[in-house]
Amino acid sequence: MVNVGLVGYGYWGPNLLRNFLQTNGATLKAVSDARQERLDLVKKNNPAVSVYTDANDLINSPEIDAVVIATPVFTHFDLAQKSLLAGKHVLLEKPMTSSVAEAEKLIELAAKKGLTLMVDHTFLYTGAVQKMKDLVTNQTLGKLRYIDSTRINLGLFQPDINVLWDLAPHDISILNYLVEERPISLNATGVSHTGNNIENIAYLTLNYASGFIAHFNCSWSSPVKIRMMLIGGDEKMVVFNDLEPSEKIRIYDTGYAHKTDEERKRVLVDYRIGDVFLPKIPHTEALSGMASDFVQSITQNKKPVSDSQIGIDVVKILEAADKSIKNKGKEVII
Amino acid sequence: MVNVGLVGYGYWGPNLLRNFLQTNGATLKAVSDARQERLDLVKKNNPAVSVYTDANDLINSPEIDAVVIATPVFTHFDLAQKSLLAGKHVLLEKPMTSSVAEAEKLIELAAKKGLTLMVDHTFLYTGAVQKMKDLVTNQTLGKLRYIDSTRINLGLFQPDINVLWDLAPHDISILNYLVEERPISLNATGVSHTGNNIENIAYLTLNYASGFIAHFNCSWSSPVKIRMMLIGGDEKMVVFNDLEPSEKIRIYDTGYAHKTDEERKRVLVDYRIGDVFLPKIPHTEALSGMASDFVQSITQNKKPVSDSQIGIDVVKILEAADKSIKNKGKEVII
Amino acid sequence: MVNVGLVGYGYWGPNLLRNFLQTNGATLKAVSDARQERLDLVKKNNPAVSVYTDANDLINSPEIDAVVIATPVFTHFDLAQKSLLAGKHVLLEKPMTSSVAEAEKLIELAAKKGLTLMVDHTFLYTGAVQKMKDLVTNQTLGKLRYIDSTRINLGLFQPDINVLWDLAPHDISILNYLVEERPISLNATGVSHTGNNIENIAYLTLNYASGFIAHFNCSWSSPVKIRMMLIGGDEKMVVFNDLEPSEKIRIYDTGYAHKTDEERKRVLVDYRIGDVFLPKIPHTEALSGMASDFVQSITQNKKPVSDSQIGIDVVKILEAADKSIKNKGKEVII
Amino acid sequence: MVNVGLVGYGYWGPNLLRNFLQTNGATLKAVSDARQERLDLVKKNNPAVSVYTDANDLINSPEIDAVVIATPVFTHFDLAQKSLLAGKHVLLEKPMTSSVAEAEKLIELAAKKGLTLMVDHTFLYTGAVQKMKDLVTNQTLGKLRYIDSTRINLGLFQPDINVLWDLAPHDISILNYLVEERPISLNATGVSHTGNNIENIAYLTLNYASGFIAHFNCSWSSPVKIRMMLIGGDEKMVVFNDLEPSEKIRIYDTGYAHKTDEERKRVLVDYRIGDVFLPKIPHTEALSGMASDFVQSITQNKKPVSDSQIGIDVVKILEAADKSIKNKGKEVII
Repeated sequence: MVNVGLVGYGYWGPNLLRNFLQTNGATLKAVSDARQERLDLVKKNNPAVSVYTDANDLINSPEIDAVVIATPVFTHFDLAQKSLLAGKHVLLEKPMTSSVAEAEKLIELAAKKGLTLMVDHTFLYTGAVQKMKDLVTNQTLGKLRYIDSTRINLGLFQPDINVLWDLAPHDISILNYLVEERPISLNATGVSHTGNNIENIAYLTLNYASGFIAHFNCSWSSPVKIRMMLIGGDEKMVVFNDLEPSEKIRIYDTGYAHKTDEERKRVLVDYRIGDVFLPKIPHTEALSGMASDFVQSITQNKKPVSDSQIGIDVVKILEAADKSIKNKGKEVII
Repeated sequence: MVNVGLVGYGYWGPNLLRNFLQTNGATLKAVSDARQERLDLVKKNNPAVSVYTDANDLINSPEIDAVVIATPVFTHFDLAQKSLLAGKHVLLEKPMTSSVAEAEKLIELAAKKGLTLMVDHTFLYTGAVQKMKDLVTNQTLGKLRYIDSTRINLGLFQPDINVLWDLAPHDISILNYLVEERPISLNATGVSHTGNNIENIAYLTLNYASGFIAHFNCSWSSPVKIRMMLIGGDEKMVVFNDLEPSEKIRIYDTGYAHKTDEERKRVLVDYRIGDVFLPKIPHTEALSGMASDFVQSITQNKKPVSDSQIGIDVVKILEAADKSIKNKGKEVII
Repeated sequence: MVNVGLVGYGYWGPNLLRNFLQTNGATLKAVSDARQERLDLVKKNNPAVSVYTDANDLINSPEIDAVVIATPVFTHFDLAQKSLLAGKHVLLEKPMTSSVAEAEKLIELAAKKGLTLMVDHTFLYTGAVQKMKDLVTNQTLGKLRYIDSTRINLGLFQPDINVLWDLAPHDISILNYLVEERPISLNATGVSHTGNNIENIAYLTLNYASGFIAHFNCSWSSPVKIRMMLIGGDEKMVVFNDLEPSEKIRIYDTGYAHKTDEERKRVLVDYRIGDVFLPKIPHTEALSGMASDFVQSITQNKKPVSDSQIGIDVVKILEAADKSIKNKGKEVII
Repeated sequence: MVNVGLVGYGYWGPNLLRNFLQTNGATLKAVSDARQERLDLVKKNNPAVSVYTDANDLINSPEIDAVVIATPVFTHFDLAQKSLLAGKHVLLEKPMTSSVAEAEKLIELAAKKGLTLMVDHTFLYTGAVQKMKDLVTNQTLGKLRYIDSTRINLGLFQPDINVLWDLAPHDISILNYLVEERPISLNATGVSHTGNNIENIAYLTLNYASGFIAHFNCSWSSPVKIRMMLIGGDEKMVVFNDLEPSEKIRIYDTGYAHKTDEERKRVLVDYRIGDVFLPKIPHTEALSGMASDFVQSITQNKKPVSDSQIGIDVVKILEAADKSIKNKGKEVII
């Protein structure tokens, strides 16, 4: 049995609490939050759970084997480092840390201590992403050509991180899960409309040696909510629309290929537009799968799906994107 | 009566022919095309129209007052220059020319000769764009913050121009028509999947001194067709979905504003999400309005809506976008 | 403080429990259900609530002021009658009873005893229906001409009541809430594909003296889920699409009117197609409003929105619809 | 070569003219219409076509082999009878005639004369209906259980026929093409809002011996345009949405089946909800296929797809529907 402590009971905390309460092999023992009213809420519905106002007390409690950290990102490194030093397994909310350097230190420390270090990229556990992973692994889509993602809506403007750090981790983690190749460079542009240099609209292009390209359109300023990812392969293409209640994945028997007409010195492109297939996606709560994976990675000493490598690869891209935005969109080598 | 000659009877030519045949104040007198079978088609349905295999014969024909040029873009400059030199008014298909230098020469020449020089940015004559122009002019949207456009579909890969030159002129001309401010710089990224350095997917960000931002997502490689433009103002926002048969424009009573909490040194953002209004858009054929505007700009010596300034401003952006793509997304000052 | 007991903890019971636990002026004191495992579930999450396997014990408990009955419809009359005889206010799930005769007896008994008798037609408390009620009351729609409702999906086939008794109460209660006029007759047709004479597809037309018409399409056998109601007035029309997450109500400035061309002895019809307006609908849980209305109707002795008259009017239509189906669609006078 | 004459150049006439001009094996020789301005229009664009103000002159012209009748339905019988008596093949617009008796006489006369008599139910020649026919013929859908069709929009109110005669022929012809069984009876209800007893909203249920059921919802009074048909089989179900530009057909791997639990004397229903498949539908102009079928049925002496039997079966249902509406929805045996 893994005894779990949850640090941070804000927006996402209640979901983590609920899921870890129901995870086989785990006991949710304690919650810490600096705000007493949040702890009161925990206590009211879960009298058996211990509560702490100081995260250090939870981290150092001998009854805790694993710490789940759901606090603002700038606190992640410190809390995770303390937990690892105290011999505790760690699950970090996304994004993993505020910098690549921090993430590297945590990964090194976890390895030295032989502890699980995992990042909650929940989307990887959804039926839709699992289905897309199958399509890629089974070569159904053929050679991948591009991913194009739009994740826009109105608000909630974050006070400490820009819209890429807020919204893009979902899509970047999906990208890195589906595609083995890693980008060689990126360009990012954006704008802040709030006078605090925190971009509320931003665009990110990832460039790859193979000719693959990925693009992310993120905004807190759109009147409509869109959650759409296009995945283009040379055999088939996928549209992942996360707002569809059941038909999240559409597989298009669509493609394009080219050959060179040597005589006329020009490229000829063939298109194919065919049937569309909407596979049934099982309804499972992704967070429940993530919680189980964390527990099993501890008890069975196995690599979790959403491991620290995916976590640091996301931070690498976000950090480089910041650099590109501040350099007016200049290419940043990753 | 303006006697019109049409140079080029390819994909768009029949639409121009049909509309100029029905335009008050104009007579479509002649068509030229190097392909005899295209001219046969013209002759079959329009026995009264003269046909020429050599465009020069049409341009120099004394019965022609105005030349409509609907040929590949790399031929625009030469044909337009000849026409202007021959004292003919000129309507060019979009994009206006292959370079800013060419466009400047044509504008100068037309001015010197006192002839109309116009570019067919048809979209400016649609009911939807006219409605959006009203919303901007009437200050309904408030201060404009951003435009975000997606124009993607599968094929038709062009052999001589990339996807930005093919698809973005529509959206850039709309942008420039709606927004008086002009961009100070841009960044563009893209990829060619056909081995000929002609990008089939490209992304373009326009940067403005005021904090306004515009972004264009163009692709010939998408399994789904999307024609959507978001226009964010600080009072209201608009979604223009050109694929909707009648509800092309949605006006959202949605906005965001910020103030600075001096005491706590942080920015506070207010959101507003309200009603949505879908104005009735009159069904008119945009090309018919464009043809009338061309004829009236000649006969009444007035500036057309889609004038040569809008034409050259589009080419400026396309030329700079090419430069940015070739420089790996580096900012290009316009 | 109104002490509430809940009889029946099946599909809908947990929702009622949760809402009555949070209703001002009410205390949810007890739950009864014949199934011990259901009571265990209640007890686990709500240790302060008393549980009974026999509904009679709950009904007769002196600590209970009001009984909420959420059991199969064939048990409604008996449980409600007992509750009223025991001096308890009663809230019945929809449909109110299995027959008009039963509903009449309950109404009479409640009146004699001076007790509240109410039916849970939850939809009447939704923001969307409240908005439509405003549009009708304010004469925005003009004279109402028709209502056309489609409520179809796959499953859950009920073992004891047909698809009209299962699905149509929602739409009939909305109709009766919006329209004061009551139908003079109806026709219903349907089919049973399960060999038990319980229709899984059925169609119902209500006929009105004024020329208004209402039609209901109900099915458990559709591959797609549709929840759509059209409301036609001679000034404006409304489409209520309950599956839209936020844009549930669309108001069309659309209409038709006719006049008679006496000379040519023919009717001339004018159409008007104009703007569309999507009002913002507040997000409120309808069931919470219903629970409050029940409690206030007791404590303030006022008529609830979803009163027993709406309840019996729904049963009148369902009973007549059964008769029409069994008589091969013959008109049944109501 | 079949020489074709077209009687009636109203709304649909130009489409017929254009298609017969391009049909292999046919020559469109003449058009008649009582309105000179309509004939002028024909002549302007098609100088080689003869025009007549009197249909009789066209019908009796020796240069005409086949007569296409596109006039109001009440004139169909007389014109078709004259044509057949004059030895001409006949294509009638839908609906075939105003009564079953008229249709029977024409069928008998055509048989006696050995002439082709066909009805233009264009929908049968669409890629979508051909695809559905394949799905039924190949047993992909299993045993058919129901068809449910909604065909509603605003206007155009017809002055001489009600909304069922105007809109339902499309769906009834599709139904009769897909399903071999014929209904044993029907019920229809409706309402006229124009004071002339011509229903602008009407509902039609067809009852079948096998337990199959079909329902049609037709309206000229809806603010939204819907063209949707559900086809339920016990293996799979289809949604045919004719307003979708390319994804008109959706095949759901969805079904329900029942068995009887003898012990507990109740019916158990199983549901299955699975993948969805959207086959590519070829883009072909249905009217062109219809015109070819007419010509080939003459030259090759073969039965056309949309033959007179489908034509009369549609009229049978419309005539019985009128009777049911006038008898307040009473079942009418067919």
